Amino acid sequence: MKIVFASTNRGKLREAAEIFKDFEIVPINTFSAWKSPDENGSTFLQNAVIKAEAAAKSAPDSIVLADDSGLVIPALDGAPGIFSARFSKEGTDAANREKLLAELSGKSDRSAYFVCAAVLIFPDKTVFAAEGRCYGRIIESCRGDNGFGYDPLFVPEGYGRTLAELSEDEKNSISHRGRAFRKLLTFKGSSI
Amino acid sequence: MKIVFASTNRGKLREAAEIFKDFEIVPINTFSAWKSPDENGSTFLQNAVIKAEAAAKSAPDSIVLADDSGLVIPALDGAPGIFSARFSKEGTDAANREKLLAELSGKSDRSAYFVCAAVLIFPDKTVFAAEGRCYGRIIESCRGDNGFGYDPLFVPEGYGRTLAELSEDEKNSISHRGRAFRKLLTFKGSSI
Repeated sequence: MKIVFASTNRGKLREAAEIFKDFEIVPINTFSAWKSPDENGSTFLQNAVIKAEAAAKSAPDSIVLADDSGLVIPALDGAPGIFSARFSKEGTDAANREKLLAELSGKSDRSAYFVCAAVLIFPDKTVFAAEGRCYGRIIESCRGDNGFGYDPLFVPEGYGRTLAELSEDEKNSISHRGRAFRKLLTFKGSSI
Repeated sequence: MKIVFASTNRGKLREAAEIFKDFEIVPINTFSAWKSPDENGSTFLQNAVIKAEAAAKSAPDSIVLADDSGLVIPALDGAPGIFSARFSKEGTDAANREKLLAELSGKSDRSAYFVCAAVLIFPDKTVFAAEGRCYGRIIESCRGDNGFGYDPLFVPEGYGRTLAELSEDEKNSISHRGRAFRKLLTFKGSSI
């Protein structure tokens, strides 16, 4: 069975394919009707629902999957939060990480956690959603080439390596997105 | 077990209590932290999620329930839709109905349907949502004293009476909200 994923991010698509093993993960941009929506929600869940509903509109007969994820830093009052992907003016991974390091400079509390809200919408408009978190801390400079976004700066609790230094399998087993996706898989009462 | 319902509408509270029989339905305004959120979503589901998340913030240890409902009229391009409760300037039931009758005046297609998006959020942030619909048509003038909102103008398919002329039990058995709530009850894998 197919799951249409409202993302074109290769890293996320790989992560989804790895976890939803029994399904074929289809990126939403293979549907010509797809138009990326305005993510103007005020929470991860709201933005994930906005994306999932936009995907469901383009692919009404499919199960659709969407997620919204971000990094929450208590010492920065929760920033970058839902603005994680557009934290810096440039909005690139490198510029976002640079801004993060600048804002954390001199702060003693470098604890942080990733949050992922993941949403499945079925053709009959029933919806399952779940949240996954990954707790850790932000280090002083980037390490590792795997992963994307803030991964090279984030050392998960109980680890010495950054998320970008972990193998894909290791990352999926502890990542916020992996946890949220696996919770979706445990839901019953649907065709999934 | 308790379910905190993000509504203070007596009609909705009664409808919820009737369907979630095995639970105690607690109105959200018994929580002092409750602040009614801006319902600025662009779909019923998005507004229901906004309300449910606001309720979950006020009552983080409870299962919370929220819904967003409205009347969709194809001949009016889907209006009043998510603006059903604030269709007229005054925003009262009577003024909304009056505006609806004025806009439908002279239209031959008076078919309409109610939509309800209902959302449950659990303390672990898993979410179930479902949609219910009730198809029918808009008559020329109000009939019946039960129900609220557009009920006195709406005759469900297969019925001769308006929703406001049906008993509470009859209405719950076919209403959009009743259908959505009952779908939530069928979901498995949670403590509900």
